[in-house]
Amino acid sequence: MSSTTSAAAPGASGKDNQHLSPKSDIEISQAAKMRPIVDVARDKLGIPAEHIQPYGHYKGKIALDYIASLEGKPNGKLILVTAITPTPAGEGKTTTTVGLTDGLNYIGKKALCCLREPSLGPCFGVKGGAAGGGYAQVVPMEDINLHFTGDFHAIGAANNLLAALIDNHVYWGNSLGLDTRRISWRRVVDMNDRALRSIVSSLGGVSNGFSREDGFDITVASEVMAIFCLASDFADLQKRLGNIVVGQTREKKNIRASELKAAGSMAALLKDAIAPNLVQTLENNPAIIHGGPFANIAHGCNSVIATKSGLKLADYVVTEAGFGADLGAEKFFDIKCRKAGLKPDVTVIVATIRALKMHGGVAKDDLKAENVAAVEKGFENLKRHIGNVRKFGVPVLVSINKFSSDTPAEMEALNRLCKAEGVDCVVADNWGSGGAGAADLARAVVQTIEAQPSKFKPLYADELPLAEKVRTIAKELYGAADISYDSSIKSRFAELEKEGFGHLPVCIAKTQYSFSTDQNAKGAPSGHTIPIRELRLSAGAEFVVVVCGDIMTMPGLPKVPAANNIEVGADGRISGLF
Amino acid sequence: MSSTTSAAAPGASGKDNQHLSPKSDIEISQAAKMRPIVDVARDKLGIPAEHIQPYGHYKGKIALDYIASLEGKPNGKLILVTAITPTPAGEGKTTTTVGLTDGLNYIGKKALCCLREPSLGPCFGVKGGAAGGGYAQVVPMEDINLHFTGDFHAIGAANNLLAALIDNHVYWGNSLGLDTRRISWRRVVDMNDRALRSIVSSLGGVSNGFSREDGFDITVASEVMAIFCLASDFADLQKRLGNIVVGQTREKKNIRASELKAAGSMAALLKDAIAPNLVQTLENNPAIIHGGPFANIAHGCNSVIATKSGLKLADYVVTEAGFGADLGAEKFFDIKCRKAGLKPDVTVIVATIRALKMHGGVAKDDLKAENVAAVEKGFENLKRHIGNVRKFGVPVLVSINKFSSDTPAEMEALNRLCKAEGVDCVVADNWGSGGAGAADLARAVVQTIEAQPSKFKPLYADELPLAEKVRTIAKELYGAADISYDSSIKSRFAELEKEGFGHLPVCIAKTQYSFSTDQNAKGAPSGHTIPIRELRLSAGAEFVVVVCGDIMTMPGLPKVPAANNIEVGADGRISGLF
Repeated sequence: MSSTTSAAAPGASGKDNQHLSPKSDIEISQAAKMRPIVDVARDKLGIPAEHIQPYGHYKGKIALDYIASLEGKPNGKLILVTAITPTPAGEGKTTTTVGLTDGLNYIGKKALCCLREPSLGPCFGVKGGAAGGGYAQVVPMEDINLHFTGDFHAIGAANNLLAALIDNHVYWGNSLGLDTRRISWRRVVDMNDRALRSIVSSLGGVSNGFSREDGFDITVASEVMAIFCLASDFADLQKRLGNIVVGQTREKKNIRASELKAAGSMAALLKDAIAPNLVQTLENNPAIIHGGPFANIAHGCNSVIATKSGLKLADYVVTEAGFGADLGAEKFFDIKCRKAGLKPDVTVIVATIRALKMHGGVAKDDLKAENVAAVEKGFENLKRHIGNVRKFGVPVLVSINKFSSDTPAEMEALNRLCKAEGVDCVVADNWGSGGAGAADLARAVVQTIEAQPSKFKPLYADELPLAEKVRTIAKELYGAADISYDSSIKSRFAELEKEGFGHLPVCIAKTQYSFSTDQNAKGAPSGHTIPIRELRLSAGAEFVVVVCGDIMTMPGLPKVPAANNIEVGADGRISGLF
Repeated sequence: MSSTTSAAAPGASGKDNQHLSPKSDIEISQAAKMRPIVDVARDKLGIPAEHIQPYGHYKGKIALDYIASLEGKPNGKLILVTAITPTPAGEGKTTTTVGLTDGLNYIGKKALCCLREPSLGPCFGVKGGAAGGGYAQVVPMEDINLHFTGDFHAIGAANNLLAALIDNHVYWGNSLGLDTRRISWRRVVDMNDRALRSIVSSLGGVSNGFSREDGFDITVASEVMAIFCLASDFADLQKRLGNIVVGQTREKKNIRASELKAAGSMAALLKDAIAPNLVQTLENNPAIIHGGPFANIAHGCNSVIATKSGLKLADYVVTEAGFGADLGAEKFFDIKCRKAGLKPDVTVIVATIRALKMHGGVAKDDLKAENVAAVEKGFENLKRHIGNVRKFGVPVLVSINKFSSDTPAEMEALNRLCKAEGVDCVVADNWGSGGAGAADLARAVVQTIEAQPSKFKPLYADELPLAEKVRTIAKELYGAADISYDSSIKSRFAELEKEGFGHLPVCIAKTQYSFSTDQNAKGAPSGHTIPIRELRLSAGAEFVVVVCGDIMTMPGLPKVPAANNIEVGADGRISGLF
């Protein structure tokens, strides 16, 4: 991944090159006729107004007490939207997630979506905002992209409080014996700022502490973010915060946040943030947007609390996971669903004709020209993702995010190939037509849920040794011949298992652009080796990060950042935010 | 100032040693019967509900459009609460400001207060929260202390976006020719974190940029905070953000934020924050809390927009300024009122018997014992502050923040001395009794306003050379014989004047514990010299910071930080936050 890539959650909407829209995303969103959020909550979800904490008139947090009162209700159906191995512009997962939600409401179902909150960093970098695209957006778009209800700022503050307490502990005598070379807890800022990736801190003499190598990640890469998204409730959040391993002593004994007495204050900072945020789609359907962990160093899904709340509030909950299905869906299933006891009912794999042609070997500049052979060749990528999802026992269907350059012959070829795999393939034009454009997809989703009961199970058992978990994913999902690692990784595996972390799931950080660790290997590469570079323990989030390749935890800004073009007009309207 | 002092705005409430309260501040605040903020806005200020942007049920932002619609209304009376040279625990300015507001309402006046927002840093450090004390508090106390409506996070993000754009500009070719040794813009975090005071950034090789010396301040020390608080409206805010000087070229040419095309994005981040926040006192009277710049590197007052809004909404607006009157009131008058065209009607100087005895030479441990002679001797400090405020043409009265250790003889001595100065001295027990305890003070304030028209004028003219402005303050207010500075400061004065900054007011950063630059020189030292160490240009905030002594822009945490004791209970209540 290049140092200028903005790899933060959530994904782009596949909007560049889509078609020549008469309006930009921000223009469409600003023209939206929003309803007061308390009205959306009451009319669409039956939530009385007093259980919505308003943040302005169009955003609100759903009170956790109210959600707890729904415990006896049956759960709705859980729909995961994932994607084939993406192009750098993304294939439109968020757009499809929002469009499908509107489509389900359009055909008369009670549906909501659960999305990740966008990070501020990418807003000012390459991508601009992230809240869907075209006529499948969540609104108020500017608010969602900028600060929203303050959750990420709260997460950043909790992360940085812990960091300050660590260095303060060392400063005042270091009674826990932290080895300053082995402090693994980094500070965060919700900004693309490459200058902070690697720093030396505590310079300037005695009163500023003990100098050491240090660095910042973007807030979405914080373990606090992952914990926030995996906690089952506030008590679990506090417990997990205390469990964070911040570093080690010289004797390699783990030091936890609880030993620094940090968990209570960190939890106090997250007390309001932990309640899920409610907004609406352009068609006034409910959208819960809560949490947004990176999909490399973390699991790339919105919060468990949001998803579980959604399942009590609606009959259909549409959610998404970062990157392609090899990373996003795998982590959704093996980390989030496993730990939270969720049972996904169906998976929608989003693809574009354009991306299939890219996997079929077509160069970026030639993607608009018809090329049926390339679609057929590129289908091998989609085919493997279909097979992978089925290995989790979850029914699957394919949704094509429509572009104006798609030709009938290309579509016909794709339909034929999908049919051979026994999978529905539905074109969705939610980008151009909103819910009406996704009505066919919505019907297909409902039909699949009714016809094919999910037999969800994670890919591997908790008891499998950590290395075997990685090997299973590599062989079963990535088509790899094997994994490889050196003796230092081997002893780290042994160390983690000895310390009692062997039962945790693994969270694989590798390029999202290939099934292999070579981002240029398109299609469905086979027989390759997945080399493990590093293991990182997320003891509070309860997974072991397995780094297989470059891992970007602090993006940079491009030469001409989006920030240069953002303006606020005399009418208070923001322009330039996509 | 020691490295563990939490010198952030606003001041402490003078609560330690006050008297043995049966309840802590947080217990009193949590027992408050709050009214929905839209009800407070409507019933107390006549603001229709649609002009309040709610943040939960008890906090709201007042729409700027609505405030603009009040332009034709006459202004209320403006009351400044300031203090004598403080003890480290503070003398209770915020408590008195809140209490006086309740007192004015208690005697039937339409009054509100305008306060600074607390910083997160001190909450986890020595002081705990800052929202008044005892029965003179603003609520919801935990929310106000933690995140509130997100203003400080927005200010921090705007500050750090500019920082990222600076290093990004250098990374991509540095066409503006920034000298990386002369980049003066620092990053911020709203945390007491001494490890970040002095760092080297952009380490780690080519892709991370050009290594340089760098550092972080606490968010309240950001020039963005000062700009936020001095801007007259949103357009002025954008203009000032563009005017920020971020550093210089090798040839010492100033580079501004506008040249980095940063102002539009920074303004977008501040779009919601710029509207003033409305909360309530324990007695359900309106309190506007907005902005909170440091009182050393900046001017230590809440936002101009908040104060001007207050003057349109109420008949009496009670506000405060950081530190003692030599710093806080001087900056309030010479920077805020001068630039915003405000006319203060009366000044209340808060004193405590305890602090007078300290200025009279009594050691900290002996302050509880009666000592009339020390009160008489310490009065010289109060006397000078009284005279100083009168030099601005503003009527003055003294308010004694009552402590149980105060004796009748001490009070009698103080009353006699005040009478000799022709100034009212009123005991206020707002800490113990809320508005009823401040009714006498409220009556005295109203009477003073009616009897003594303010003839406010700043201390010095815009046209005076910068060094002469400093000299005027030093001689007229600090009792100094003169100022001193070396040739490098002399040429910097000349440089600033040549660049067109000679008309700006000066913002003096010196210890708040003495009229001199020696924090141990209590009472009213005379004939000393004020040495100027450094000049810093705040071109966006439009003042020149004159550093006279140590200046703390990033506090540290103490050995046992308040953070260690903060907990969130099973009922969701926070304990340990004072």
